[in-house]
Amino acid sequence: MIVMKTDATKEQISRVVKELKKYGLRADVSKGAYRTVIGPIGDERKLPFDRIAVLPGVKEATMVDTPYKLISREYGKSFEGAEHLLIKVGDIVIGGDEPVFIAGPCAVENKAQLLRIAEGAKKAGAHILRGGIFKPRSSVHSFQGLGAGGREQAEEALEWLHDAGREFGLPTITEIRGESQVDLVAEYADILQIGARNMYDQDLLTQVARKGKPILFKRHFGAGIEEFLSFAEYISAEGNKDIILCERGLLPVGKGRSYTRYLLDLASVPVIQKETFLPIIVDPSHSTGRRDLIFNMSCAAIAAGASGLMIEAHYNPEEALVDGPQSVTLDELKDIIDACKKISKVVMSKKDKL
Amino acid sequence: MIVMKTDATKEQISRVVKELKKYGLRADVSKGAYRTVIGPIGDERKLPFDRIAVLPGVKEATMVDTPYKLISREYGKSFEGAEHLLIKVGDIVIGGDEPVFIAGPCAVENKAQLLRIAEGAKKAGAHILRGGIFKPRSSVHSFQGLGAGGREQAEEALEWLHDAGREFGLPTITEIRGESQVDLVAEYADILQIGARNMYDQDLLTQVARKGKPILFKRHFGAGIEEFLSFAEYISAEGNKDIILCERGLLPVGKGRSYTRYLLDLASVPVIQKETFLPIIVDPSHSTGRRDLIFNMSCAAIAAGASGLMIEAHYNPEEALVDGPQSVTLDELKDIIDACKKISKVVMSKKDKL
Amino acid sequence: MIVMKTDATKEQISRVVKELKKYGLRADVSKGAYRTVIGPIGDERKLPFDRIAVLPGVKEATMVDTPYKLISREYGKSFEGAEHLLIKVGDIVIGGDEPVFIAGPCAVENKAQLLRIAEGAKKAGAHILRGGIFKPRSSVHSFQGLGAGGREQAEEALEWLHDAGREFGLPTITEIRGESQVDLVAEYADILQIGARNMYDQDLLTQVARKGKPILFKRHFGAGIEEFLSFAEYISAEGNKDIILCERGLLPVGKGRSYTRYLLDLASVPVIQKETFLPIIVDPSHSTGRRDLIFNMSCAAIAAGASGLMIEAHYNPEEALVDGPQSVTLDELKDIIDACKKISKVVMSKKDKL
Amino acid sequence: MIVMKTDATKEQISRVVKELKKYGLRADVSKGAYRTVIGPIGDERKLPFDRIAVLPGVKEATMVDTPYKLISREYGKSFEGAEHLLIKVGDIVIGGDEPVFIAGPCAVENKAQLLRIAEGAKKAGAHILRGGIFKPRSSVHSFQGLGAGGREQAEEALEWLHDAGREFGLPTITEIRGESQVDLVAEYADILQIGARNMYDQDLLTQVARKGKPILFKRHFGAGIEEFLSFAEYISAEGNKDIILCERGLLPVGKGRSYTRYLLDLASVPVIQKETFLPIIVDPSHSTGRRDLIFNMSCAAIAAGASGLMIEAHYNPEEALVDGPQSVTLDELKDIIDACKKISKVVMSKKDKL
Repeated sequence: MIVMKTDATKEQISRVVKELKKYGLRADVSKGAYRTVIGPIGDERKLPFDRIAVLPGVKEATMVDTPYKLISREYGKSFEGAEHLLIKVGDIVIGGDEPVFIAGPCAVENKAQLLRIAEGAKKAGAHILRGGIFKPRSSVHSFQGLGAGGREQAEEALEWLHDAGREFGLPTITEIRGESQVDLVAEYADILQIGARNMYDQDLLTQVARKGKPILFKRHFGAGIEEFLSFAEYISAEGNKDIILCERGLLPVGKGRSYTRYLLDLASVPVIQKETFLPIIVDPSHSTGRRDLIFNMSCAAIAAGASGLMIEAHYNPEEALVDGPQSVTLDELKDIIDACKKISKVVMSKKDKL
Repeated sequence: MIVMKTDATKEQISRVVKELKKYGLRADVSKGAYRTVIGPIGDERKLPFDRIAVLPGVKEATMVDTPYKLISREYGKSFEGAEHLLIKVGDIVIGGDEPVFIAGPCAVENKAQLLRIAEGAKKAGAHILRGGIFKPRSSVHSFQGLGAGGREQAEEALEWLHDAGREFGLPTITEIRGESQVDLVAEYADILQIGARNMYDQDLLTQVARKGKPILFKRHFGAGIEEFLSFAEYISAEGNKDIILCERGLLPVGKGRSYTRYLLDLASVPVIQKETFLPIIVDPSHSTGRRDLIFNMSCAAIAAGASGLMIEAHYNPEEALVDGPQSVTLDELKDIIDACKKISKVVMSKKDKL
Repeated sequence: MIVMKTDATKEQISRVVKELKKYGLRADVSKGAYRTVIGPIGDERKLPFDRIAVLPGVKEATMVDTPYKLISREYGKSFEGAEHLLIKVGDIVIGGDEPVFIAGPCAVENKAQLLRIAEGAKKAGAHILRGGIFKPRSSVHSFQGLGAGGREQAEEALEWLHDAGREFGLPTITEIRGESQVDLVAEYADILQIGARNMYDQDLLTQVARKGKPILFKRHFGAGIEEFLSFAEYISAEGNKDIILCERGLLPVGKGRSYTRYLLDLASVPVIQKETFLPIIVDPSHSTGRRDLIFNMSCAAIAAGASGLMIEAHYNPEEALVDGPQSVTLDELKDIIDACKKISKVVMSKKDKL
Repeated sequence: MIVMKTDATKEQISRVVKELKKYGLRADVSKGAYRTVIGPIGDERKLPFDRIAVLPGVKEATMVDTPYKLISREYGKSFEGAEHLLIKVGDIVIGGDEPVFIAGPCAVENKAQLLRIAEGAKKAGAHILRGGIFKPRSSVHSFQGLGAGGREQAEEALEWLHDAGREFGLPTITEIRGESQVDLVAEYADILQIGARNMYDQDLLTQVARKGKPILFKRHFGAGIEEFLSFAEYISAEGNKDIILCERGLLPVGKGRSYTRYLLDLASVPVIQKETFLPIIVDPSHSTGRRDLIFNMSCAAIAAGASGLMIEAHYNPEEALVDGPQSVTLDELKDIIDACKKISKVVMSKKDKL
């Protein structure tokens, strides 16, 4: 990690980047409110830190031995002067003192559905509208989302989502499942989602990152925290730091009947907040797969310190094409958001002590 | 499950029990505020339910196909008329509308230590005093608790715990690790704990159950919920329904560094409340193994609906003989209890809706 | 599953395919030595099987309720008349009575390295040459293979691999990690590998499948067998049945030090052979991560019934750029292959009995 | 670890033991063919190794930093002069060059059953007779073995097992599930089994160890290798080194249908052989739970280097009271043993090279 002096010039920064290239490494240049920091991408052991430390404009040059240095709390503090970064999407701030709620249908079905849910979500207090168009599915025989119907149908669905969001003042988010979808989706959505099943797909991560839009990055159900953050680093290495991490459950442990779809790891929330400068939110819908558990697990996620929630909501969960059993109604969504806001205040008031 | 009429006589109940024995099954006779229910223990498929249903005093006789019928919500409702049972220990009620806090040192060290912690815990708002005397340890080379010093030393430690509890009006709890400790511990402690590592030890479960005292029963870190409840059924089958279930974390999932000792499964809390009439509490100390996570995970557990918490607390965590890194100070304990009470109110106010 | 009569005409087959489309389903048309079978792709519950069964040329039309019907043993038997399909790559047959050995370096480093290893592998008895060019890595800071150096360098490395294979009569295999690599790699390699980390990447699977070349498909370390086969079905649904499945280890279970990189699930070998008509091989190198375990685990895999092994081998494991600690020498490779052949004979001789 | 000189006297040994006690540690005194070694039990960091090293008769005194030092390969080598210890039960040697086969019914049912199976097992080539009397079961409603019928019935069943073994020259093994069964079982059985569910039950381990008989110690399905060996150390710490370790499968990994009961970890076999001087065998019956997999997984276990197998066998698996679906017939048992012997020879012939 190479910390530049506050008055370092453009040329001095370029000089350091060149030095890194000489040793076969790329450079992450993070210009913050506070100062510029340069993070080497590649094997740092090849770098002569002694030599770099005395280059003009350099304040400090040290080796950082973690697979996720470019998103580490120390790195963020160096260039931004703050332990946690705020991610802004329109007027919405993610990672601040108030929790952010993302809501919407699992899958986009038609324009009327989206408008009706967007309106309800807005009234319930949600901030961002979700809706799946390219659906990752475990079986080729299941409905794969409107995106499977070809480019035209995909684009139409993206327009519906975009329009519904604009109509009710809600920025939008939808998932990108494969490289060929990156350009199209990035044209329409405000936040680009990379789903749990694609967490390890480093080529996709790189390409989505390059779009420069905020990314919601979900933890794979078999990934340890270290691995999750190491793959988030692939995004950061493209110069995109607007990464919203998302916990959505791990493989169940133990034999016998599974009472929930996945095993929600809520301790990952405070752990990750201590490791990185990125915000982390929780998806209680996919993790539990059970509508009757969403209220309690939403409250628990906020109590654990999450910066927000992503909840599947529908005016009529029974008739949803995908994941109906885990969607809440719009009334339930309001109850959840109300309770979460109260809990957030209780937890936040003690934050400084801990 | 054989539900007796409200006016069923002793003789009619005995008659049913005899009938069960004839087919090689034992009987669990649960007399509640509402009525008496008889649960067959063994292979129900051998029973002639048609014949039993017409015995005098019998209201209903049906086969229940789950490995944990004697602790199931339906069973509890049948004899008690309520979906959840209250467990009373002195003046303390576990499973009611207010969360119960168990606190104390991981291991009992000496009388002064216990008195000091008991006083602090009481002031912080705790209701029950914990302290380990027979410590289960992964290594034979580690300190095994004062109980390892022989019967006399064990009894002395049990007296200290008992006395410290009485001095500050706190019922006490301590762990039983082996069959030879059952009689001794049951003489002194108000609640008998069976630890996670002993969850599968059915002979120990049976013997502890027979003491008739409330039991805190911890989930093993490799046990699915179905398995956990199936082993709680061993306790219930001895006629002891005062079982406080406790979630304390599962095996970590994923590769790489472990940031917490275990993986806390908070969704198990509402799930188990829907499956059984027993209360469930959470142990944030052993599950995380990290003092800096206890506040958030305690709040999250209560938000998930837990009936209480078991927290390791010490006036000076650094000098604790066992598990210092995960103990909170008595001041921190107070902060945790205060926040949890507020969160409990938020969550409880919505309870009926869900 | 729609089984056609042996004398069904092209037109009759087209008629059935059209019928499926009418209900929104795609069709997998498998013409075998035995007869033609048509597998519906999509939600079969929408199909009027009664009506389809009486269409001209149709022998039988039944619903198959498994997420992996197009690779199921029953399906294969219907069109090929055999329980297991043979996959041919040049003169090599995978899935027959003799085990097939794939060997080579983890990562391609230079032409000389490849030639030397290819020669040694051939002498040791290997049949196919492996070598990684696009390396999936957990850290963006690690060496990502020569493929990371741009298209020209990638193509050069692919040529080396191809040439080394041709020189010693070994078909070649290398991994495709992202969609943008599909066309290039398919030009050079005889078998296209999809790695464990990409198992869930359905868009990549679909595109690789369309190249029509044999595919080596690795199980993700967090995937159950059902999920593994459900994703293999994505490949099969593109009409490509030349799928070599590969077990390479699961997430470790239990706490404490990990003695191997992954947990090799050898029982998956006979299980999968009973579920599908596809051959399954084992990768003892990535699963154990330890050179000193390769001999025993290779023997065990063949004893479990595997159709082959993929082993990392190097003339000098210590100097390998990637995964040196788990590569065997070329002498060790010979010992392994010799022992495995003997064990295969012992196991095969009893095959009919079981 | 304190290695004594070959001519060290009894007094010199006692002197060292006393020194250890002074610092609050117990001593494991292992007198081998080669020399005497004293292993400290407890926290070695408290010991003044410098001082101990110069006591009369002491050759070497070093700290060993592993939770399983008393069963480590180094420790065994020090007192026995060999890397692996042989465990003798009658004429049978476990841990030598030839695999040992333990076979018999899951549960003892009656004397005729045992005699018939013992005769068949002997003819098939088995060396030791197994039969469960105290059965650990996940449900209190399942058959718990004849041991549940009271002491008299338990003793009768133990006699049957003993007699059947004597009649056909087979030493016997049966499981001890609780502390109250230790004395009784130790009177009759030649090898005492501690089952997977009791692996963590340190009080039981200690009491069984004190009987001085060989112990078969099974790995819990949630235990890492380090934990498994750490609990074996509890047995060793009682001076009993005749411990046969047994791998019987771990918790399944991944979602969806489970095709086997547990996940057999065969790599644990060579790993454990490198870590300890104890032999390790494999139980293919409980791990797979499927009769149609036993042949392949038995062969695989021996190929992995196991010192033997424990296989459930019955003349009529369909009518077995417990675990019928996983029992092989006596004919199948013969096929398995024959194939395993051949495979063992192939693997053993390369042993020195690796």
